[in-house]
Amino acid sequence: MPQKPKIKAPKPESQRVGFAIVGLGKLSVQELIPAARTSEHAYVAALVSSEEDKGEAFARAFDLSESDVYTYDEFDGLADRPDVEVVYIVLPNSMHREYVTRAAKMGKHVLCEKPLGMNARDAQEMVDVCKEAGVLLMTAYRCQYTPAHWAARDAVQGGTLGKVKLLDSMHVQVEDDPTVWRLKKELAGGGPLPDVGIYSLNTVRFVTGQEPEWVFATMHQPKKDKRFKEVEESMSFMLGFADGVVANIHTSYGAFKTDTLRVMGEDGSLLMDPAFKYEGLQLTLSSEAGKTMPTFPSYDQFSLEFDHFAQCVRSGKQPWTPGEEGVQDHVIMDALYESARSGKVVKLKAVKKRDAFRGTKPKLPKG
Amino acid sequence: MPQKPKIKAPKPESQRVGFAIVGLGKLSVQELIPAARTSEHAYVAALVSSEEDKGEAFARAFDLSESDVYTYDEFDGLADRPDVEVVYIVLPNSMHREYVTRAAKMGKHVLCEKPLGMNARDAQEMVDVCKEAGVLLMTAYRCQYTPAHWAARDAVQGGTLGKVKLLDSMHVQVEDDPTVWRLKKELAGGGPLPDVGIYSLNTVRFVTGQEPEWVFATMHQPKKDKRFKEVEESMSFMLGFADGVVANIHTSYGAFKTDTLRVMGEDGSLLMDPAFKYEGLQLTLSSEAGKTMPTFPSYDQFSLEFDHFAQCVRSGKQPWTPGEEGVQDHVIMDALYESARSGKVVKLKAVKKRDAFRGTKPKLPKG
Amino acid sequence: MPQKPKIKAPKPESQRVGFAIVGLGKLSVQELIPAARTSEHAYVAALVSSEEDKGEAFARAFDLSESDVYTYDEFDGLADRPDVEVVYIVLPNSMHREYVTRAAKMGKHVLCEKPLGMNARDAQEMVDVCKEAGVLLMTAYRCQYTPAHWAARDAVQGGTLGKVKLLDSMHVQVEDDPTVWRLKKELAGGGPLPDVGIYSLNTVRFVTGQEPEWVFATMHQPKKDKRFKEVEESMSFMLGFADGVVANIHTSYGAFKTDTLRVMGEDGSLLMDPAFKYEGLQLTLSSEAGKTMPTFPSYDQFSLEFDHFAQCVRSGKQPWTPGEEGVQDHVIMDALYESARSGKVVKLKAVKKRDAFRGTKPKLPKG
Amino acid sequence: MPQKPKIKAPKPESQRVGFAIVGLGKLSVQELIPAARTSEHAYVAALVSSEEDKGEAFARAFDLSESDVYTYDEFDGLADRPDVEVVYIVLPNSMHREYVTRAAKMGKHVLCEKPLGMNARDAQEMVDVCKEAGVLLMTAYRCQYTPAHWAARDAVQGGTLGKVKLLDSMHVQVEDDPTVWRLKKELAGGGPLPDVGIYSLNTVRFVTGQEPEWVFATMHQPKKDKRFKEVEESMSFMLGFADGVVANIHTSYGAFKTDTLRVMGEDGSLLMDPAFKYEGLQLTLSSEAGKTMPTFPSYDQFSLEFDHFAQCVRSGKQPWTPGEEGVQDHVIMDALYESARSGKVVKLKAVKKRDAFRGTKPKLPKG
Repeated sequence: MPQKPKIKAPKPESQRVGFAIVGLGKLSVQELIPAARTSEHAYVAALVSSEEDKGEAFARAFDLSESDVYTYDEFDGLADRPDVEVVYIVLPNSMHREYVTRAAKMGKHVLCEKPLGMNARDAQEMVDVCKEAGVLLMTAYRCQYTPAHWAARDAVQGGTLGKVKLLDSMHVQVEDDPTVWRLKKELAGGGPLPDVGIYSLNTVRFVTGQEPEWVFATMHQPKKDKRFKEVEESMSFMLGFADGVVANIHTSYGAFKTDTLRVMGEDGSLLMDPAFKYEGLQLTLSSEAGKTMPTFPSYDQFSLEFDHFAQCVRSGKQPWTPGEEGVQDHVIMDALYESARSGKVVKLKAVKKRDAFRGTKPKLPKG
Repeated sequence: MPQKPKIKAPKPESQRVGFAIVGLGKLSVQELIPAARTSEHAYVAALVSSEEDKGEAFARAFDLSESDVYTYDEFDGLADRPDVEVVYIVLPNSMHREYVTRAAKMGKHVLCEKPLGMNARDAQEMVDVCKEAGVLLMTAYRCQYTPAHWAARDAVQGGTLGKVKLLDSMHVQVEDDPTVWRLKKELAGGGPLPDVGIYSLNTVRFVTGQEPEWVFATMHQPKKDKRFKEVEESMSFMLGFADGVVANIHTSYGAFKTDTLRVMGEDGSLLMDPAFKYEGLQLTLSSEAGKTMPTFPSYDQFSLEFDHFAQCVRSGKQPWTPGEEGVQDHVIMDALYESARSGKVVKLKAVKKRDAFRGTKPKLPKG
Repeated sequence: MPQKPKIKAPKPESQRVGFAIVGLGKLSVQELIPAARTSEHAYVAALVSSEEDKGEAFARAFDLSESDVYTYDEFDGLADRPDVEVVYIVLPNSMHREYVTRAAKMGKHVLCEKPLGMNARDAQEMVDVCKEAGVLLMTAYRCQYTPAHWAARDAVQGGTLGKVKLLDSMHVQVEDDPTVWRLKKELAGGGPLPDVGIYSLNTVRFVTGQEPEWVFATMHQPKKDKRFKEVEESMSFMLGFADGVVANIHTSYGAFKTDTLRVMGEDGSLLMDPAFKYEGLQLTLSSEAGKTMPTFPSYDQFSLEFDHFAQCVRSGKQPWTPGEEGVQDHVIMDALYESARSGKVVKLKAVKKRDAFRGTKPKLPKG
Repeated sequence: MPQKPKIKAPKPESQRVGFAIVGLGKLSVQELIPAARTSEHAYVAALVSSEEDKGEAFARAFDLSESDVYTYDEFDGLADRPDVEVVYIVLPNSMHREYVTRAAKMGKHVLCEKPLGMNARDAQEMVDVCKEAGVLLMTAYRCQYTPAHWAARDAVQGGTLGKVKLLDSMHVQVEDDPTVWRLKKELAGGGPLPDVGIYSLNTVRFVTGQEPEWVFATMHQPKKDKRFKEVEESMSFMLGFADGVVANIHTSYGAFKTDTLRVMGEDGSLLMDPAFKYEGLQLTLSSEAGKTMPTFPSYDQFSLEFDHFAQCVRSGKQPWTPGEEGVQDHVIMDALYESARSGKVVKLKAVKKRDAFRGTKPKLPKG
């Protein structure tokens, strides 16, 4: 009856891959660190936090010693920690490049939150620096590691829906607090698009395995709302793929939280609703015969990410969502902003290959 | 327990408004004529059909006498039938104008299927001719008469959702038969847009009460599919409203039937799924407190249409969806085709007034 | 997209089986007569009503002539109507036997509403009289003719659920009006049990194809509620089948309308909710793999009944739910009342044969 | 967007209540210990396990030192651990009394898994021994601490449903492994009834706040299934309350997992489905107006239990589900087994008072 992740008495830490978590925001504290506990192949070996006190409180809470806590000034001290094999960057977007670079130069593999950078050029530099340093770089696209998203992908690519014709997605939520870094253009690079809209964009690319050939976007930045002095409140956009396949997408910081994906094919359709939440993802497949809602094993999404990258570190293989995957989203987001500014369609360079920017397939948990 | 329309022993026909149904396609036979039977204020007094035999078979089946059946050649004979107060045009789109005109000139009120005409100019002529003739013209937008769509409109305009930000709709289905008139440009005027996409377009306008200021569209007409020699297979489009409100819409003749509407506001969202079916419409309102799915009285959508127009005929009032409402959808569809051809945004003339093209509110059935 | 019953231009009435509807209550007017219109094999040839005016109004409304309307006094005049091959009894339960008998003696086949009679003995007499007269008798169990209930039966008997273990059903609704005949013991024979509880009872027998070996029941008749002076407000009961299979059932006239069926097997379960409504029946099959909700063709339940019996009349075959099926429910209901009175388990005579009281399988509509 | 429990940097352990977990089965390892981590007021201070190695592995995994791990032989050593204020008994049912007694005699407060004991007498002794020792005893009925179950209770008792008439519940699942202690009568005291059926029983009592006046039960123990040599495979039963209110309940170890609760009142009904899972509980309220599905804050059920008891320990107040609440379920289960054996209704002593066996209301988490 229980649907929680299965916990075995975990392996001794000596056999797992140690991660340093850089940045102790809500995501780290509420999701990543708890998830690491249920990971088979990874564990949290160190924390990096701006506030020494907070770091130490969490160290205590999460059973690390005080010597496992670093301030940003002490970041380079991780070089002396052979048990830290991966540095996980969970910082404001504008800081990604600096910390990815510093980690890579210490020879640490890097897992970096999405969006990978501030724009395509910024992100590409991270890819380059990691390649040079001979370390792996993975963009933390958790949805590409869930059984539900893979089932959607299989339905799209395996013919369940017949030839795919149209896609539709939205990822909107309300950002209330005008002071958060996500609303500062210099820190975030943009508004809801690189933060939540990126899920729709990335998932449409993931389930089809294809890249858009053109985009059109419109965005809205209300003049009187103090939250949106620097970034857009919402963006609505289209992605045009080969053979007339089109995805319609909405993203916003101004509307009640909604996160869905629909794919419509000749013979059937699929709906994910919710599509991007941390838990409770639901997939419905419709056809003339009726509706089917598959049951998935209930693993923690973040644990799956940790496990995949830890296994890549051990095997030396390119992760499924490497830095290149993050760069490609930036290429498209750059085009979306350009379209929104110009009011015109923006063409993208054709990419014919399927999964052109992805690496080794992850192992999915079984029911 | 029963959820069917309530049937009273209906009034004698002498007190109801007699309709002549022109065109005996699937819609007439499966929906309109049965619906007329449960109408309080309307009844079918005559049928006009191209095939005399078919007309007579249906007359027999539907308890009309053979003298109530007319061929198209005999259409003008309806002038001698004072019991026929309304002519309901259920013909291929290209024939609407001719028959609306002939009916109006006989002094009959006219109910005309959507889309009203072939384009905005064609539709406007019908409005003009009816005005001149002093008869009422109603466009048969059945969704504007359902309790479910009015509840959606009330949620949007009454503040349940907070300020409305984004809308999303799709109406797609598979058209299998390459020979149907709906795939002939000269008969239909277009493909899925004026046939099924018009529901999304019209409903977005109806629930907001507002008119778009600009549109962007892309369409797909596959070269090798013999169904789509003349019209588009699918169209994806955006409608831009005041204050940055945007609607994303898909329509297609090539994808598994899906018909939905979402409206996202600051404080909540609504989903209609299905949104445009003849029965079983479902509305879900979401907010922080949870989800609510109201129950509606289960009246036949077509009966509601009949009843509204019959009451307008009696009162002399402008129907809620007069010819002007049909013209406005053509204005927008003309712009959508222009955008799809040019690849550019097309601006529309600003319309500030709410419900600018609508008449007298219909009386809704009560639970 | 439309899900309504398909209407062909029906055969001339001369090729169909004519039914006389006896009793013009809500069921006849709102369901049966409209359903007959969409029947392939049946039509309404005559009406029998206590109120001449009402009968004539409906005759007019339903396109019969005044000579097709009979009062109860004139009932025997149906003998002179060779076009009336079937008499459909839609009267208070206590009148079933008299009218079934009179119809059988005229040589008319008889379709009789459920419950067949007032108790097992009363019902058995109807079976006997029809047998003697050489006419067919069918109990109008509409649920045994729906695609949804047959899909449930197939899941139960075809192994989809694994070995069946437990069943659970309820059919409750509020009866507000203290004056209705259903609350008079002499007219109804009982309260909610023979009216709505019988659906749960009959469907549990239908989906398993088996008969209970024992029953236990408790009933409630509140002293101060004027509606329940004569009959129970509610009954809760258990049916015990071979191999420890047990069905729990609730029925009531005092609770918000709910109608469901669950069947739980080793490998899966099924839920019908709603289970007994006139339309919109929904079946969900659950297993480790997930949930499946099949789509059914949307035929009118009453048309299917009409069609089945009309075909039996033509072929001379025993209907799927003959009088014997109605008797067996009375045998069990008699035992339930006995258990409720005594507070003790009541054993029933063992019936080993599957579908022991059923006749020729109906043809189901296809999608 | 995240729906996980909110984690603050927790208080230092010195301010929280230390628990010793006795028994390291699946429940402890997968649910209780992880839940304790997110508790505001409690933490795990010690583990008691039969297998020293396993205990140490978990100690390591859960950041306890080896000196925090006790074998059963060393259990009494907890007396010397002032930081252990509560002993949480998670052992086979037959061992509850011994360990509750030993803990109480050390002056430790006791939280004990359900069912509290082997039967009413056994359970009552635990209550008595704790009372004598001056320590608190709480039965671990997690469902009585969830926002979803309280919302159901509020709907039942607050009038949302009108006068409550009937209840229906089932809690069934497949127990595959013939070797588990739950299938040994001497260890478990019974089969599915005290293990999973107790949820239905306890929840029906909780939402109504009332006690049954009589019970009827039937049970099935298949002869050839080696899993059910000692205990029943399934039990179906009725609970009779005042004013003719009846609950129908199924429980089984032989059927596909299903856990639901329905309450039907005059004006509406409620459904919980799932009703008893560790997460994802869903409540639907139905009335003439439609359906409502409230959203609940998503706290871990076990954390809420820990927190409630920890707060009682600090305040000295009787917990909401004290030992007495556990005894009452045993009184009823004893009657159910007696009824199943005798085939007769068994009367219970009348209990008029609402919530007769409950203590201080828990504080519920807010959204």
